[in-house]
Amino acid sequence: MRLRSIVELIAAKRDGQALAPEEITWMIQALTKGEIADYQFSAFLMAVFFRGMTDEETVALTYAMLHSGSVVDLSHVQAIKVDKHSTGGVGDKTSISLAPLLAACGVPVPMVSGRGLGHTGGTLDKLEAIPGFRTDLGVEHFKKQVQTIGTCMIGQTADIAPADKKIYALRDVTATVECIPLIVASILSKKLAEGIDALVLDVKVGAGAFMKDEARALALANALVSVGTRAGKRMSAILTRMDSPLGREIGNANETREAIEILRGGGPDDLRECTMVLAEEMLLLGKAAKTPEEARTLLQANIQSGKALRVLEQMVEAQGGDPKVVEHPEHLPQPEVRVPVLATASGFVAGIEAFTLGMTAVSMGAGRSRADQAVDPSVGITLDKKPGDAVKTGDQIATLLLRKHHDAVALGKRVSDAFSYTEQKPTLPPIVVARIGS
Amino acid sequence: MRLRSIVELIAAKRDGQALAPEEITWMIQALTKGEIADYQFSAFLMAVFFRGMTDEETVALTYAMLHSGSVVDLSHVQAIKVDKHSTGGVGDKTSISLAPLLAACGVPVPMVSGRGLGHTGGTLDKLEAIPGFRTDLGVEHFKKQVQTIGTCMIGQTADIAPADKKIYALRDVTATVECIPLIVASILSKKLAEGIDALVLDVKVGAGAFMKDEARALALANALVSVGTRAGKRMSAILTRMDSPLGREIGNANETREAIEILRGGGPDDLRECTMVLAEEMLLLGKAAKTPEEARTLLQANIQSGKALRVLEQMVEAQGGDPKVVEHPEHLPQPEVRVPVLATASGFVAGIEAFTLGMTAVSMGAGRSRADQAVDPSVGITLDKKPGDAVKTGDQIATLLLRKHHDAVALGKRVSDAFSYTEQKPTLPPIVVARIGS
Repeated sequence: MRLRSIVELIAAKRDGQALAPEEITWMIQALTKGEIADYQFSAFLMAVFFRGMTDEETVALTYAMLHSGSVVDLSHVQAIKVDKHSTGGVGDKTSISLAPLLAACGVPVPMVSGRGLGHTGGTLDKLEAIPGFRTDLGVEHFKKQVQTIGTCMIGQTADIAPADKKIYALRDVTATVECIPLIVASILSKKLAEGIDALVLDVKVGAGAFMKDEARALALANALVSVGTRAGKRMSAILTRMDSPLGREIGNANETREAIEILRGGGPDDLRECTMVLAEEMLLLGKAAKTPEEARTLLQANIQSGKALRVLEQMVEAQGGDPKVVEHPEHLPQPEVRVPVLATASGFVAGIEAFTLGMTAVSMGAGRSRADQAVDPSVGITLDKKPGDAVKTGDQIATLLLRKHHDAVALGKRVSDAFSYTEQKPTLPPIVVARIGS
Repeated sequence: MRLRSIVELIAAKRDGQALAPEEITWMIQALTKGEIADYQFSAFLMAVFFRGMTDEETVALTYAMLHSGSVVDLSHVQAIKVDKHSTGGVGDKTSISLAPLLAACGVPVPMVSGRGLGHTGGTLDKLEAIPGFRTDLGVEHFKKQVQTIGTCMIGQTADIAPADKKIYALRDVTATVECIPLIVASILSKKLAEGIDALVLDVKVGAGAFMKDEARALALANALVSVGTRAGKRMSAILTRMDSPLGREIGNANETREAIEILRGGGPDDLRECTMVLAEEMLLLGKAAKTPEEARTLLQANIQSGKALRVLEQMVEAQGGDPKVVEHPEHLPQPEVRVPVLATASGFVAGIEAFTLGMTAVSMGAGRSRADQAVDPSVGITLDKKPGDAVKTGDQIATLLLRKHHDAVALGKRVSDAFSYTEQKPTLPPIVVARIGS
């Protein structure tokens, strides 16, 4: 077939046509080589925003972005390798529990994670709160550790999906971020570069999530599962609620401590339930269990036996961190100051605005508003009360974990304002909104 | 009000919001100064393609583009100054008759025209077929000649609407040309820079026009009239048919000769009618006549008296051309070779594909496929038969006006194939499809 020019391809997409896979492949290669201009590709992105893409087009886009860089070969690891990806929330530290827990159950987890940006935290920042822990290990170390310990948690290397970096940078400045096929290709091109066989997606929905609306979140989850399946991967997605923060901790060291608590069988109910549901799904995709019930039993056995904690210790040690933090989380960085935040009403906590608390934590230094900022592992927020809890005016509802120089009054006001109250005990929606299998 | 960032403005347009006039003004100024990136503006253009613009937004865009450069001040000319703009067709030489004809009737016509590109010809190229004729005169000459002779026909200077040049170049490579508010702002920003008070638009519709579809052409005409009126100009638009070429001549010298013929009271019916309808509308906007009938009478008087021809002679002389061509059009460049094209069927000419003949003339050298090409004034096509004419197989239907090196057989085949025939005498649609007043 004759390959159409970039102007013809933009016009075709603009007019609602599906492009041929080889046309999309050519376009991404030409963009990477600088043969088509950024201003042409951004017009194309806006046309995709309005016209969408078929699953076939999104698969082609994903593959083209994936093969713009290198792909890790984990064929030496003789098992179904499963990863989990979250679309991002506040207080979401499930990855830190999931990787060692699944490895303990015999399912290898090769995990390439990101850093926090805006109101959402990042797994790498949380892990790096562990003294000495390194996430900048090379591909060879990654491949070996996945084989020996069953999991390795690192950051994205420069040669993973460079086309995605370029396209994401363009989307960010052209109001084309919120577009499902572009989101799908961005997520999957990076995840497929890890050498995985299966992927569980935690698609967050609610006021504190990227997708505020359940229908949009469901559409994203379905598209991810459908496109990933067409790309030959075992896929499933769980829609989970992100109105209030997940768990009680928002920050870095404190979130890592809470994730360790989960591996000890403790932790807050919402975080434990979210972690276990994702873990079940990963076990099912990894063929280590046949039913969710069987999976839950296996997970609980590995928690109760302490095996999951042992894998975490091995992983921390293998990545240069101090393994003592697993048994003694008090060795994690501690805040200079703890300031209580008190309830301004009596009754029940109705909700806690995740977005507000995420942005407040960023302003303390726990996250980033620009990608080149450093984070402070010691600071953050602890929620002493969660939605549904009974409170009386003056009860401690949260704790600020601060540096001495912070303006505790202003920060306390922001955290306090993020709480809403109700006279009647509220009915809390379940954490899992929907499951989408492949 | 707080001015939103470019990303917020792109997102607002993407989501179907109307932007504030000052936001559009800022955006065009920032684009001109290089403060917003081309890739951002092209994403905005594609969002406009899908979401459109209100008339208020289009007025703001027109003004911002207009004031990106200099505006001619013709306030010293004490009359309503009227111009005409055509959206472009094949064989459309009405401007060359209209400017002197209207000036003869007392209505000043300050006319800044363009060159041919693609299948459509350009007024400047046709005028430059007159030996010595200059269209690159400065603004001071333009202002003086409009005052003394009543008309001056020049090309766009570099400082007229530079933002339009930049935006048009981006639209051309991002598939955002065919978008009514962007077309309107492009046309009006350039025309308003001439210092006019009133503008008649000749919106071509049909297979040989930019707008193939009557509903789209009508929408463009309405938008032009509405936005121009809001910008304080007297406006009207005529939708005219462009399926077959206008008149009998396609080229440059031969088109100029045909335009002179119109001023002598001759010329083909379709061209004469199109010219007279546009001239009537210009007289009405210029308040030199109260009714179309009164206007027609005034026009015919100025043709019959020879006054229109005299103004043309004055204009040609004032612009450095040889005024003898007006009385002796045989002094215009002549082709090296004339080759007849013969009818392949008997009956009636049903239609002549304007687009095909326009492109054939370009391939002879009468037009351009790229903006930096020169044109050959002597070459072109003469239509010896027009739609509705009776023909017998072997009758001469057209004449190729060629250079000796041209492939007359191949060119003749293309011209021949552009003719279609019918057994019954066809009913020809009127040249004027609709009139839109302000």
